[in-house]
Amino acid sequence: MANPTLVEATRGGVAESRHRGAVCVVDADGAVVLALGDVEAPVFPRSAVKGLQALPLVESGAADRLGLTEAELALACASHNGEPRHVEAALAMLRKAGRDGSGLECGAQWPARAGVLRAMLARGETATAAHNNCSGKHAGFVCGACAAGLDPAGYVRADHPWMREVTAALAALTGARLEEDRAGTDGCSIPTFPIPLRTLALGFARFAAGAGLPPARAAAARRLRAAVAREPFFVGGTGRFDTQVMEALREKAFVKIGAEGVHCAALPGRGLGVALKIDDGAGRAAEVAMAEVLARLVAMTAEEERALAPRRMVELTNWNGIRVGEVRVTGW
Amino acid sequence: MANPTLVEATRGGVAESRHRGAVCVVDADGAVVLALGDVEAPVFPRSAVKGLQALPLVESGAADRLGLTEAELALACASHNGEPRHVEAALAMLRKAGRDGSGLECGAQWPARAGVLRAMLARGETATAAHNNCSGKHAGFVCGACAAGLDPAGYVRADHPWMREVTAALAALTGARLEEDRAGTDGCSIPTFPIPLRTLALGFARFAAGAGLPPARAAAARRLRAAVAREPFFVGGTGRFDTQVMEALREKAFVKIGAEGVHCAALPGRGLGVALKIDDGAGRAAEVAMAEVLARLVAMTAEEERALAPRRMVELTNWNGIRVGEVRVTGW
Repeated sequence: MANPTLVEATRGGVAESRHRGAVCVVDADGAVVLALGDVEAPVFPRSAVKGLQALPLVESGAADRLGLTEAELALACASHNGEPRHVEAALAMLRKAGRDGSGLECGAQWPARAGVLRAMLARGETATAAHNNCSGKHAGFVCGACAAGLDPAGYVRADHPWMREVTAALAALTGARLEEDRAGTDGCSIPTFPIPLRTLALGFARFAAGAGLPPARAAAARRLRAAVAREPFFVGGTGRFDTQVMEALREKAFVKIGAEGVHCAALPGRGLGVALKIDDGAGRAAEVAMAEVLARLVAMTAEEERALAPRRMVELTNWNGIRVGEVRVTGW
Repeated sequence: MANPTLVEATRGGVAESRHRGAVCVVDADGAVVLALGDVEAPVFPRSAVKGLQALPLVESGAADRLGLTEAELALACASHNGEPRHVEAALAMLRKAGRDGSGLECGAQWPARAGVLRAMLARGETATAAHNNCSGKHAGFVCGACAAGLDPAGYVRADHPWMREVTAALAALTGARLEEDRAGTDGCSIPTFPIPLRTLALGFARFAAGAGLPPARAAAARRLRAAVAREPFFVGGTGRFDTQVMEALREKAFVKIGAEGVHCAALPGRGLGVALKIDDGAGRAAEVAMAEVLARLVAMTAEEERALAPRRMVELTNWNGIRVGEVRVTGW
C-alpha cells in the first residue's frame, strides 16, 4: 500500500509534483491521535532527534558544571545555518570543555543556504567543522564526555561511552530497540538508528510531557525545550522553518527537522508527540506537512496563525519574482 | 493507481527514501517500447524541451545569419551552471544579435552549484541574468527574434511572435495541443505547457530520427544534436549529468534534464525518444532513472559503460567522506 499524498507543488494552478508520506501523532501513553500512511515502518530519524540526544548533556549535570547558556543548549539541539553566531557558540561550548574546534568530528561543511554562504565568502572565511550544521550537537557531545571525565576522541562511534549514553536516552524515550548493527551512518558520522514512526512520535510525546520519565530526565527535557523556545535562532537560523515556527509559538511547540523528509515535534500543551516522514525525502514537503499538523493541534492566537500561514502554503516565485505556484497540503 | 517506485536512496544498506515516477520510451511512429506508470498524465516538461525550443533558431536561418558557433547552439539548449564560459557565450550570442545582457528577460540567478558559486564570489562577481541557467536559451530567443526582424522585447510572453514560433515547434514535434490558457510560468518566466509523458517522448523520438519532420526541421534537429554532442560542456557544465553523459556517449544520446524531476532523451541510433518524470520532482532520482534507461537502450562500449556507471548508482558520502548509502534503481 502506497502512503497517501500529503503535499503537492503546483504550477499554474495544477499539481506539478506530489509528495507521499506518513504522519503519526501520539500521546505519552502511546495512544494514537492521528495516523496517516504506514506509521510502523522504520525510518532513520536523522537530525530530528537532536533534542532527545542532548538529554544526557543536561541530565548528567554536565551543562551546569560547564555553565552552558540557553543559546548553547539550543545549539546542542540544532541543525544550524553556520552563521557567525552559530559558529561562535559552538566554539564557546568547546572552550568550556577545555577543547577547541579540532575536537569536532562532524567534518567541515559549507553552509547550505546561499545567502549565508555568500556572506561567509564575502568575509573571506573557509568552511570548518564548526560551520557544520551539526556542530552544536557535536560540541554538546564533547562537553558531555569531558564533564564525565571521558576522553571525547572517537565520540561519533556507536561504541564510545558517551555515544552509548546518547543512544540509551533515545532508546529509553522511544522504547525502540536500537541495535548497533542495524545503524546507518548520519551525515555528521554518528550512528542513526531505524525507528518506526509511531515509536518516534512516542519519544516526542514523552519529551513534551515528561510523563513516564525519571525526574532528572523530565527536568532535562523541560530545560532543553525552554532553551530552544527562548533562543530559537540557535536551533536553525535566518529563514529556517524551525526557528521561525518557534519564534512564533515559543514553548507551545518544539519542532525539529531531520534530513530526508523527517520532521518531529513535541507539543507540551497537548502532551503530544508528532513524527512524520516524506517518502521521497523532500524537506519542502516535510515542513508544509508539519505546519499543517501544528495548525490543527496547537491552540494559536490570530498573530501566531498569521506567522505560521506562509509555512502552511509556501509561495513559489521564479527568478523574476513572479508567483508561479505553491507548495501546499492536499486534502487530509 | 500510484506510479511505481523507480529509484531509492539507501543508508546502511536499507532504503531510506523512495521515488515514484513514470517512464515512457517510444519510436518516431509512436509505438511504445517501454511504459512504466501513468504515461498519459500531463507533466510540465520545463527545461527538458530546450532542444526542441531551439529548433526555430536554426530552422529559420537565424543561427547561420548571425554566425552562431556550435558551443552557442549547445548553450541555446542548456541548463548551465553559470560558469564563466557559459556567461561569456551567452553574452557573445547577444552581441551577434546587436544586443547585450540587458536584453535577457530570465531574471538574475546565482549559480546553484556550491563550487561554482564559491568560485564566482571569490572573483567578486555578482549574479546577472547571463548567469541564469537559462541564459543561453533566452539569448537564442533574442537571436531568433532579431534575425527575423522582430522586436525581441517581451519575448518571454506566450503571445510574442517569436515565442509563438517556439511553441509551434514544440507542438509540431510532440503533436500536443499547447493552449496558452493552460500554461504555467517557468522559472525563467516563459510559458511551460502540460504535455503527457508519452507525447513528450514522441517529440524526442522525432527529434532523434527526423522522421515525419519537414526537411529543414529535421536538419535543424540534427545540427542541434551534433552541436551538443561536440560541446557538451555548454549544455550543463562541470559535474552536470547531461554534460558527463554526452561527453561519454556523444551523438548516441541527446539528454536533457528539466526541473521537478523531468528528464528527456533522444536516441538517434535507435530512433527512440525517452521522457520520464519523478512524481516528487527529485532531480537525483530522474538522473539515476535516465542513466538506467540509457544503459538498457544504448549500445555502449565497455568504456562508455564505465563512464555511465557512477550515474546509475550514485554513491552518497557524508561530510567526512564516509560512504553512507547510494541512490539506485529499484528492480524494474
